Amino acid sequence: MNVKLLTLAACIGLSACISQPASDPAKTSKEIAGVLARWQKAFEAKDVNGAMAMYAPGDALTAYDVTPPLEFKGAAAYRQDYVNFFAGFDGPIHVELRDAHIEPGTNLAFAYGLERISGKTTDGANVDVWLRYTEDFKRINDQWRVVHEHISVPVDIATGKARLDLKP
Amino acid sequence: MNVKLLTLAACIGLSACISQPASDPAKTSKEIAGVLARWQKAFEAKDVNGAMAMYAPGDALTAYDVTPPLEFKGAAAYRQDYVNFFAGFDGPIHVELRDAHIEPGTNLAFAYGLERISGKTTDGANVDVWLRYTEDFKRINDQWRVVHEHISVPVDIATGKARLDLKP
Repeated sequence: MNVKLLTLAACIGLSACISQPASDPAKTSKEIAGVLARWQKAFEAKDVNGAMAMYAPGDALTAYDVTPPLEFKGAAAYRQDYVNFFAGFDGPIHVELRDAHIEPGTNLAFAYGLERISGKTTDGANVDVWLRYTEDFKRINDQWRVVHEHISVPVDIATGKARLDLKP
Repeated sequence: MNVKLLTLAACIGLSACISQPASDPAKTSKEIAGVLARWQKAFEAKDVNGAMAMYAPGDALTAYDVTPPLEFKGAAAYRQDYVNFFAGFDGPIHVELRDAHIEPGTNLAFAYGLERISGKTTDGANVDVWLRYTEDFKRINDQWRVVHEHISVPVDIATGKARLDLKP
């Protein structure tokens, strides 16, 4: 038995090679769903620390939010974006997730779907808008962390209007 | 030597375990960069087939474009979006990519960055706008294919205006 066959036999026997841990897609999907559920709970409670727990710390995060600027670089900048956003709401915020799709990988994963954000602003206005979200995860220190997020609504280029009225 | 140590030694010796092919991050990054470069060339030439070559065929694609609707499900729907978009331009379209980041994985990868789209519409208007793009790739039949894309500009929620004027 040569070394290749021996390795193959050993890998099959162990069901995973030690130098390349086998991914378990179902387990990864469940873990990612758990991260998103914890984010949703924290977001609805306007808990900045809880919401930020989903993201990679430091400079590893690049986020494209529904509001300006074009990009947020680093967790500290994005944390401030959360602080500003939550401060604009009077009372709790409601989040409804729809069409959630999770793609589990070995060291990367991604999730995307539609989310409805509703609540009352401090100006007394009612916000009720459907957004698109994309979360790109990386396995860092045995935890799934978002290293890239993209949130948006479609816009009409010709009129320059944001389409805050669309529904799935 | 027990079987675990033997497997470890064999895997290290081969630099890859046969049952779990080792990913080569540098190779994956180069492949993804090549896919994006081919997309850019096709987009600038308004070549629908060339641009669509980046995407997973059939129902595997979910795309969130800068323009409505909220989501495109499937390659056929997104292809029509490309046809409509290209038809709105008189002459070639110029694409400038900036801050491109590629995250290579074993079976998944993602890429994101800023892109400037400029050209002249069939109405004679000049379009020159910076967009955010996110491309989520999956290895399908030995090719990297985009299964999820997200393109957008930020918007001002209070005024309902798309921010087409932002620059990096």
